[in-house]
Amino acid sequence: MNSYIEQHKNRFLTELIDWLRIPSVSADSKYKDDVRRAANFAKTQLETAGADFVELCETAGNPIVYAEKIIDFKLPTVLVYGHYDVQPADPINLWNSPPFEPVIQKTALHPDGAIFARGACDDKGQVYMHIKALEVMLQTDSLPCNLKIMIEGEEEVGSKNLESFVTAYKDKLKADVILISDTSIIGNDTPSLEVGLRGLSYVEVEVTGPNRDLHSGVYGGGVDNPINVLCQMITSLKDANGHITIPNFYDNVIELTAEQRAELNQAPFDLEAYKKDLGIDDVFGETGYTTIERTGIRPTLDVNGIWGGYIGEGAKTVLPSKAFAKISMRLVPNQTPDEITELFQKHFESIAPKTVKVQVRPHHGGHPAVTPTDSTAFKAASKAFEEAWGKKPVPTRGGGSIPIVALFEKELGLKTVLMGFGLDSDAIHSPNEHYGVFNYLKGIETIGLFYKHYAEMSK
Amino acid sequence: MNSYIEQHKNRFLTELIDWLRIPSVSADSKYKDDVRRAANFAKTQLETAGADFVELCETAGNPIVYAEKIIDFKLPTVLVYGHYDVQPADPINLWNSPPFEPVIQKTALHPDGAIFARGACDDKGQVYMHIKALEVMLQTDSLPCNLKIMIEGEEEVGSKNLESFVTAYKDKLKADVILISDTSIIGNDTPSLEVGLRGLSYVEVEVTGPNRDLHSGVYGGGVDNPINVLCQMITSLKDANGHITIPNFYDNVIELTAEQRAELNQAPFDLEAYKKDLGIDDVFGETGYTTIERTGIRPTLDVNGIWGGYIGEGAKTVLPSKAFAKISMRLVPNQTPDEITELFQKHFESIAPKTVKVQVRPHHGGHPAVTPTDSTAFKAASKAFEEAWGKKPVPTRGGGSIPIVALFEKELGLKTVLMGFGLDSDAIHSPNEHYGVFNYLKGIETIGLFYKHYAEMSK
Repeated sequence: MNSYIEQHKNRFLTELIDWLRIPSVSADSKYKDDVRRAANFAKTQLETAGADFVELCETAGNPIVYAEKIIDFKLPTVLVYGHYDVQPADPINLWNSPPFEPVIQKTALHPDGAIFARGACDDKGQVYMHIKALEVMLQTDSLPCNLKIMIEGEEEVGSKNLESFVTAYKDKLKADVILISDTSIIGNDTPSLEVGLRGLSYVEVEVTGPNRDLHSGVYGGGVDNPINVLCQMITSLKDANGHITIPNFYDNVIELTAEQRAELNQAPFDLEAYKKDLGIDDVFGETGYTTIERTGIRPTLDVNGIWGGYIGEGAKTVLPSKAFAKISMRLVPNQTPDEITELFQKHFESIAPKTVKVQVRPHHGGHPAVTPTDSTAFKAASKAFEEAWGKKPVPTRGGGSIPIVALFEKELGLKTVLMGFGLDSDAIHSPNEHYGVFNYLKGIETIGLFYKHYAEMSK
Repeated sequence: MNSYIEQHKNRFLTELIDWLRIPSVSADSKYKDDVRRAANFAKTQLETAGADFVELCETAGNPIVYAEKIIDFKLPTVLVYGHYDVQPADPINLWNSPPFEPVIQKTALHPDGAIFARGACDDKGQVYMHIKALEVMLQTDSLPCNLKIMIEGEEEVGSKNLESFVTAYKDKLKADVILISDTSIIGNDTPSLEVGLRGLSYVEVEVTGPNRDLHSGVYGGGVDNPINVLCQMITSLKDANGHITIPNFYDNVIELTAEQRAELNQAPFDLEAYKKDLGIDDVFGETGYTTIERTGIRPTLDVNGIWGGYIGEGAKTVLPSKAFAKISMRLVPNQTPDEITELFQKHFESIAPKTVKVQVRPHHGGHPAVTPTDSTAFKAASKAFEEAWGKKPVPTRGGGSIPIVALFEKELGLKTVLMGFGLDSDAIHSPNEHYGVFNYLKGIETIGLFYKHYAEMSK
């Protein structure tokens, strides 16, 4: 397998780069055609790699690419999930090279070079490893079990149409385990495997004061300003200890035992290096928890965007009519997005002063999930990492959300193995997103080894 | 005079509309050529109206249009000030007709129609009344004293280059009184004259957290979010009583006597009608003061704009690197913009938590001013209103700032008469700015009467 990868690595990179050129931004309807183009690209590449049966499954939104390679119905089946849609690229002006014109450049953490492009790591780069792993295994005659793969196009906007697809395709999607590469490892010298993911509740709020923009000189001081009010309302959502003040917010949170917390905090973590990497003088989070805990096992509330009034060049003395914010909450087991969104909405409406009107519009949500560490598949993944990277991977609790994990468990009764290969510093969802060339090629190798060990250990 | 106005009113409107078509937005450098075009238009119109000596005076920024009509050096001289630049028109999508394609439409308050366009009231429409009043007086042989007029192009961005112009032109600008139409009256059935104006301190703040946008799932909860921090900082700038918390902020504020406050509150004010007009259920302001006082004699702090993170369509789970706000404070006698800007900057920097860095960038400022009510000019203005509108005007304390008022007093030793004709509901600085056709024509008449009474009462 390794010599095949070595021999074809330039083509493996070129193909991925071609896919990255397609701006498949699902959050912005102006990229609708590009999104479909990206799906068709994946379909063609799966056919070329040797999948038996490849189709573009239509949904109410963007199509889902589905493919399979069935060796023997008696062998176990792995169902791979990934997504071909990407986050919006803005703020564009902070990119060092255009987000959809990939370039390979060396960085301190990626001495072999990294591919800079929107989607390089999240998730096209990580999905494409699976397509190439399929090619490698088929060309070297080493695929030891059945493989199914589904690549959706709405992950970045909440996988709205995935549930109905999974329900409708329940029989077709039958498998023994889910394999997803959409997370990160601690470092290239410290491989790791995610064992928990936070869920998500995402809302947009609109605060309306006067029915039109006013001159702040004429009305200022006498009429409440919706931006000031929004700031007050946002501020009141957390206390000085970083604790969220929404009533009943923590009711269903499963607290870890002291033993579980101690184990979690054994993962290598250098606070000084963390602060230095981010350019901050201090971290902040919920009192009583470490940074690993704050980003892994505790729910959060962050403003992802805020806007209102005059935001152009120069000065305009306006007392605006409206102010807006996008606010998201990361959820932990046993919180559910519907419950938390409802608590937020009720609370946010209740704290609005009489001087304004507020609207809360729920966006998508995602359920938190914990993956088992005692399954055959997890053990096979651990062994694959150990063989490819020379080190046993550290189990970690990730902060991001992959809603599909909870959905798969509910609809298909399947557990997931989160075998991601990105680095936290790869700037996913940020300008200059990138993915290490080393990680990409090593990932293909690790995926191949997973199949080998999984098939062997399943016997 | 009145029959001349009646006879030429359609042309008076058409000429103003042509001027309004020029998007002379001073805050946005892309309109630089249009700003100059608007200046040249004014120059030509002043020449046509019969001014003796018209020039475009270059400054480090936009030119100042200057003109004069000297009848007799022994007669008193009125110096008119106005501005031809306008506020930015955004948010464009809230305009019912394009901001630079003026239309005349009836409204509840303007049954004779109003001109809808950016600058219709602030200040092109109010300046053009003076150009037309000059024409009327010259054509009807009724100009009873000397007239000078200066129209600047940077009022909406802080009149940066006006001071050096005034200093350099000190001799040329010699006059007995300043006349400005850039304020409003209480209503078309309640004429009023401004006797006080608030000053302005305007700053832009930038809060920086991590050195790049982060994935809120991976980092959320562990790294302080600059939007949340900015909201906290803004919130802390006022207490629950609407009192500004910046240390020493109120030190120099001149408190009015109980008698002065009682007089001020005699101006007709209907709180229910005020709330209904603005579409709000309640007003908010500093505890212990009426709405008239809050907007007239008390300093304020308003966020004029805020932005940060993802503000596009859909959802993006970003923990942003930066958040920004434009914040302005209205000042009252005896506060000065420099002092207040410095207090703000010092305080804002001091309250920043260790997790972020803040920058405060001062924009322009303006000194507050009070105009005398016992001068000949004020009495002449009052008489002109009484004659034209059939009612004695109510003296009011206006909320807006016209920095030139304090500048003129300091540099030229001249007092100002604020004879504005707009309505507070004319939506200046807002979408759908308009100016009543009745106000425009009645204003021309009132200005003519001011000259008549001022010359007579000066004898």
